Amino acid sequence: MKVNVLRLDHRRVRDARITTHVCLTARAFGASKVILSGDQDKKIMENVRDVVKRWGGNFEIDYCKRWDKFIDEWKRNGGEVIHLTMYGEAVQNITGIIRESTKDKLVVVGGSRVPSKVYQESDWNVSVTNQPHSEVAALSIFLHTLFDGKEYEIDFKNSELKIIPTAHGKKVLTKYKNSEIDDQ
Amino acid sequence: MKVNVLRLDHRRVRDARITTHVCLTARAFGASKVILSGDQDKKIMENVRDVVKRWGGNFEIDYCKRWDKFIDEWKRNGGEVIHLTMYGEAVQNITGIIRESTKDKLVVVGGSRVPSKVYQESDWNVSVTNQPHSEVAALSIFLHTLFDGKEYEIDFKNSELKIIPTAHGKKVLTKYKNSEIDDQ
Repeated sequence: MKVNVLRLDHRRVRDARITTHVCLTARAFGASKVILSGDQDKKIMENVRDVVKRWGGNFEIDYCKRWDKFIDEWKRNGGEVIHLTMYGEAVQNITGIIRESTKDKLVVVGGSRVPSKVYQESDWNVSVTNQPHSEVAALSIFLHTLFDGKEYEIDFKNSELKIIPTAHGKKVLTKYKNSEIDDQ
Repeated sequence: MKVNVLRLDHRRVRDARITTHVCLTARAFGASKVILSGDQDKKIMENVRDVVKRWGGNFEIDYCKRWDKFIDEWKRNGGEVIHLTMYGEAVQNITGIIRESTKDKLVVVGGSRVPSKVYQESDWNVSVTNQPHSEVAALSIFLHTLFDGKEYEIDFKNSELKIIPTAHGKKVLTKYKNSEIDDQ
């Protein structure tokens, strides 16, 4: 099962940091690709590719102008669509059912105003609590619930940097030096 | 066990949206208070209080100029400190141990550069994956893991608005109209 994330309605200045967090969260929690819609934003795409280069793995980032056609094509190709919204069915109740199907999943993360087509055409509208908070939090919790914690075991291959978890301080392995740095 | 969140090094313009997401995520996932440090930012505090007014519960927001003194005082009062950092011990391994103590918890969420004092003086440095992503995602996953899903059952009392989870569309109960709105 491949999981991609579609970020709707990105606005270049206003959303730069939130969208970057959406992209990096998608990568860290096991999605294989993020697709941005809205404004084209080369800087974000470069930043995300730079993270992949340094921190490893095969995560991809792409842009699509017409998100509606992208969703239609995803469904035509046999994939399923999950829209994260505070109005949807509770993540803790519905994700077990979503997980039963091994079809590829497109997780749609909205911007400020999500057209009703997204609500109607998604196979599932999923809420992570019914409170206002953050698309970044919703995405991380949904992917964590979908993958059931297995995302913690992902080995991001070919990284230049690797962290060694530690109680107090920072330990980083670098590919080239192949030694520990402890700079705190 | 009371859980508060301390947001370090808030910068008024650059961090406005991320810090807002940190605050709302803290609230939605069961923290009782967020304390901002760095720039003073009345607008964020008003926005968060407005969310509490409309969506219910007793969540509070406050500001402290000296985060180091705040942490010292928290510890002097018998509370424990958890710092979320990609360099820390894995959330899936350490949270069970953290949960064993019923002492009040201060969850510290960093800005761009976190002083080494935070790493040293925290009872636990906790990582949510060892990959770069988002303090918003890290906070939601940590609180979700700490509360073990019980945060989904929080009843945010005295709200003006309440969402009825639904498969397709939007259903909102309002306190005053006491009727369903279905606007999608």
